[in-house]
Amino acid sequence: MSDLPSAIHLMEVGPRDGLQIESKILSRDEKLALIAAIEAAGIKEIEVGSFVNPKAVPQMADTAEVFEALTPKPDVVYRGLWLNRRGLERAAQTKNVTLLGRLHLTASEIFVKRNTNRSIDETFQEIPDWIARYRAAGVTPDSASIMAAFGCNFEGDIPPARVVGLIERLDKLLIAHGSRLKSVSLADTMGWANPQHIKRLVGLIRDKWPDLVLKLHLHDTRGTAIANAVAAMEMGVCEFDGSIAGLGGCPFAGHKGAAGNICTEDLAFICEEMGVKTNVDLEALVEAAKLAEELVGHPVPGKVMKGGLLSGLRKQ
Amino acid sequence: MSDLPSAIHLMEVGPRDGLQIESKILSRDEKLALIAAIEAAGIKEIEVGSFVNPKAVPQMADTAEVFEALTPKPDVVYRGLWLNRRGLERAAQTKNVTLLGRLHLTASEIFVKRNTNRSIDETFQEIPDWIARYRAAGVTPDSASIMAAFGCNFEGDIPPARVVGLIERLDKLLIAHGSRLKSVSLADTMGWANPQHIKRLVGLIRDKWPDLVLKLHLHDTRGTAIANAVAAMEMGVCEFDGSIAGLGGCPFAGHKGAAGNICTEDLAFICEEMGVKTNVDLEALVEAAKLAEELVGHPVPGKVMKGGLLSGLRKQ
Repeated sequence: MSDLPSAIHLMEVGPRDGLQIESKILSRDEKLALIAAIEAAGIKEIEVGSFVNPKAVPQMADTAEVFEALTPKPDVVYRGLWLNRRGLERAAQTKNVTLLGRLHLTASEIFVKRNTNRSIDETFQEIPDWIARYRAAGVTPDSASIMAAFGCNFEGDIPPARVVGLIERLDKLLIAHGSRLKSVSLADTMGWANPQHIKRLVGLIRDKWPDLVLKLHLHDTRGTAIANAVAAMEMGVCEFDGSIAGLGGCPFAGHKGAAGNICTEDLAFICEEMGVKTNVDLEALVEAAKLAEELVGHPVPGKVMKGGLLSGLRKQ
Repeated sequence: MSDLPSAIHLMEVGPRDGLQIESKILSRDEKLALIAAIEAAGIKEIEVGSFVNPKAVPQMADTAEVFEALTPKPDVVYRGLWLNRRGLERAAQTKNVTLLGRLHLTASEIFVKRNTNRSIDETFQEIPDWIARYRAAGVTPDSASIMAAFGCNFEGDIPPARVVGLIERLDKLLIAHGSRLKSVSLADTMGWANPQHIKRLVGLIRDKWPDLVLKLHLHDTRGTAIANAVAAMEMGVCEFDGSIAGLGGCPFAGHKGAAGNICTEDLAFICEEMGVKTNVDLEALVEAAKLAEELVGHPVPGKVMKGGLLSGLRKQ
């Protein structure tokens, strides 16, 4: 039997990654209510929105207003997403945004070109500018996310060695600029990962950088997300993005009608069942999921919110 | 990294366990079309229906007709379910039924009482009659299923030791009657299992009966089914029931709107992605899932049928 971490850290991306593909635009107050419900369940890191072009992602047009209208809790990180200089500038001017020095890479040459009109090499050429920008904003550039780290609907499988190569290149670049890579979030943006692939890639990275904090951003496009998270925990990964009620998907990934991000409360549930602490109140998290379903106005992928928690059944 | 089996055997229970909770009654020909689509995908064992009281499960009223109208393939097992003498008699009189000498146990005292109006002890008292009936029908009583083997919505957690005790008692009873227990199917009827629980119970059983064939019948009520199947494979289990498109649930388990059985094609997909052979044609299985969705006339839980297989994306 594998050893699992004693606790994991859950990061909620529903208000951003979950909502961005919804055609129904939620009001600022609806978004605030959802965030409040997620906070009330004990989640300590929430991706509130993204500072991107509102024409590309209309749901995110009021991200700054949502941030500013928050009543921030001192122990909660309110994350934002930005993918260009203008986005970072807007984020830096916005109240309540926890600025994190995250650098964005993509492991698929075709996907990064489609999404950002840049090659992987061109992405790297911009990193020194990002380092300077973050420093100017008073933030240490020490974390990265890697999109399509397992596979890409347009390119196919992404070999683990390529991801290792990206991390190596970024780490060297950061060292050359007087910083250091402290954490990497591996994103299975289009749902290509499986438990063996997770173990292989995480194992390779752990071998080379034993102290690097690994985070996983999983999608349940093909029903593998929870099994992938369990495999990652068996390899010692203990930071996971999740999306309340399983909202989400990727608007640029080319598959409609497919399941979204890994469902936060389903992940929290299986963890707690296995004795892995999540520090969330599962009942409150299910309430937040029910609010999310009500707000988007259509059935959502979450399972525990329909199947019911076991705690209540155990009490009977 | 855990070793996985090189191949698994998938048993399709959609036409029985999947359809039985559907309020829309499918016609005989619709059921035959679904069975034919499942067969065309290479599935070699199919639970066609159940010989139960049609008043309790109206969807199964035409089970005998469905069996008789089949064009059986020589290498396919057409399973039926019966829970009393009358059911077995009807099955034995019906063409194309592969009679299997399966004995039914339940690990929850409350659930077995609700379902069958008998205690666990009373169930055991009837086993000698079942042994005699099977022998009279020319079948060796050598397999068992254990419902609610992980937990019960009405009773709570089921300790692994209780399941081990049931197997021990049944094995002794069979030996006393000149037979032997060759296989046990553990059913997570109400979706209580988690990967650690699966590994613990399977490990205990393997320790005591290394040669006993273990099968798993999983439900995805709380989103854990695929992760549970992976955990079971890591423990060497290589026979799994599945339900096409994730149809199903348990009509007597008391939770409405919850997800059903583990989805056959989602399980087959993750297996093939990990290099575990299933001997099915995934594209044909997805077609069968789409037919199932069309026949029941509402959205179904299956993920791969919506997210899409990776084989086509790799070919691009």
